[in-house]
Amino acid sequence: MPRIQYEDLLKEFERILRDRGFSEKNALDAATVFADNSLDGVYSHGYIRFPRVVEYLDHGSIDPKVTAECVQSFGAIERWNGNRGFGPLNAHQAMERACELAHQYGIGLVALGNNNHWMRGGTYGWQAANNGCIGICWSNTMPNMPAWGGKDRKIGNNPIIFAVPRSNGEHVVVDCAISQFSYGKIEEARLNGKQLPVPGGYDEEGNLTTDPAAIEKTWRVLPMGYWKGSGLSILLDLISTVMTNANSVQKIGTFGDEVGLSQIMIAIDPGKFNDGETTDRIIRELIDDLHTSVPVQEGGRVFYPGELELGTRKENREKGIPVNDEVWNIIRSK
Amino acid sequence: MPRIQYEDLLKEFERILRDRGFSEKNALDAATVFADNSLDGVYSHGYIRFPRVVEYLDHGSIDPKVTAECVQSFGAIERWNGNRGFGPLNAHQAMERACELAHQYGIGLVALGNNNHWMRGGTYGWQAANNGCIGICWSNTMPNMPAWGGKDRKIGNNPIIFAVPRSNGEHVVVDCAISQFSYGKIEEARLNGKQLPVPGGYDEEGNLTTDPAAIEKTWRVLPMGYWKGSGLSILLDLISTVMTNANSVQKIGTFGDEVGLSQIMIAIDPGKFNDGETTDRIIRELIDDLHTSVPVQEGGRVFYPGELELGTRKENREKGIPVNDEVWNIIRSK
Repeated sequence: MPRIQYEDLLKEFERILRDRGFSEKNALDAATVFADNSLDGVYSHGYIRFPRVVEYLDHGSIDPKVTAECVQSFGAIERWNGNRGFGPLNAHQAMERACELAHQYGIGLVALGNNNHWMRGGTYGWQAANNGCIGICWSNTMPNMPAWGGKDRKIGNNPIIFAVPRSNGEHVVVDCAISQFSYGKIEEARLNGKQLPVPGGYDEEGNLTTDPAAIEKTWRVLPMGYWKGSGLSILLDLISTVMTNANSVQKIGTFGDEVGLSQIMIAIDPGKFNDGETTDRIIRELIDDLHTSVPVQEGGRVFYPGELELGTRKENREKGIPVNDEVWNIIRSK
Repeated sequence: MPRIQYEDLLKEFERILRDRGFSEKNALDAATVFADNSLDGVYSHGYIRFPRVVEYLDHGSIDPKVTAECVQSFGAIERWNGNRGFGPLNAHQAMERACELAHQYGIGLVALGNNNHWMRGGTYGWQAANNGCIGICWSNTMPNMPAWGGKDRKIGNNPIIFAVPRSNGEHVVVDCAISQFSYGKIEEARLNGKQLPVPGGYDEEGNLTTDPAAIEKTWRVLPMGYWKGSGLSILLDLISTVMTNANSVQKIGTFGDEVGLSQIMIAIDPGKFNDGETTDRIIRELIDDLHTSVPVQEGGRVFYPGELELGTRKENREKGIPVNDEVWNIIRSK
């Protein structure tokens, strides 16, 4: 696999988006989301997804001139309408605004309704942390999981992200869908002929299984923590729908595609109470303690959330981002 | 089991707390937490726990005159010191203040450090919702779970609560510890000679097990969603420690008892954007859709989070709260 330098990838994305009518700033912001996801090793929501996004633009299903706008505001909270514009760009702008509100009020919330897929939720956690803020954000999705006690898909795997900033940029970030495994992970396991490491859903007899093919037959995927994830999913959907007055998981299920999602961006500025050294010290102490864990496997190690992405990021920044030749050629031809 | 009317239980708790030096208001607020938990069927954190709390007061390990105080404030966020006062009372006052901030700014956050155990976290979610607010809150705990990949207890099962208000008081509330099962549930299963319904931890050979006794031998309890819950637990602890600049899970583990916890109370006022009817309609539509789930078990039913507590509450309000005779006699003799 060839390796492409981050800057080269970013420039290609920027060029393509500018050619499709994005403003300079919006092209850079949106390109950065895809380049950063690639840098962090989340290729599925990075360069691999990019050609599909360009198709949406070329077919007119995304209009580069349509962006999110604030429709209601009160103190530290704002309600935005994404107008079904470009998902990652709208989400980026919404989190940027939440951070501004946090700098002004200590905490800020932007409820972004009617937005398209934001790609990788972790993006907006890292973004908040880069702004010196604690970030909490989530998105609803289409119905892709049964509620606890039910068989048919009624709830979303609504990814939720928590991020805490460090002054050295090595933030602590957790980014997890509320399902035990994403659809992508289940498919990947089947294609590789592997079992899932823990049960990920139900087979046709209603038994928990680690067999990805059996789960794909029923689509009864498992919420993380069984009944707990089911409850969390419902609450995240409710909060985002109430605060946006836009589309619930159920409503999104009627659209035929995963569009018009409801997203919540919360930023908190710890700098209002701590100097940077205090926050850094608290985080370092916690990480140091985690690293003293007795590993389950001899020679193993406990990582803090975000630590593995950081390793990939460093390697990819140094050596370049490994890209599939075919996909890279498609991107360059756009 | 005799059944005691809610008002009688509340009055007993109030009398006992006033006798120990609580002010009228504080006695009522603290008594209400224990009475409400009993009403909702969470007896372990209601009347059953009450005699132990009285002992703490009588032995001087809780001082009724010591309450939480705001030590830093910026816009919509406040940092409070709980001064190791009475946990549920401090938590109640902190959430009350978060709701006031939400009414003023749309969103409010109170970071309450150095507080004692808040009993049932759901209390403060219901409280926020009773104030017309969305509530999000969590507490750290002592180290009671290994981080993912480790064997020794390094992280907390930090309970997190999400609540959404309805004007009829039938709020939607999820209240869950980040471990798959609480220590209490594991003990209960062992005492009843039952297996856990799903794996709750590891046995001495390092295999996942549903056997409560085997888990109690290793104390390797499982985070909800395996690696996901581990990551969430770490982030919740980090955010609460950074915002309070008080005690992390690791630090609490050095105290010899579960005291001096760090708690976060966030309230959001949806009334700034929606009239009450709109919020009610959104929630009703989501609940109605959930209720149309195809049940796993014939004749079964899918409940929304908080629905089961509501049933218990109605029954206990009507018939009285079932109390263990012995415990009730102890309470009355205090």
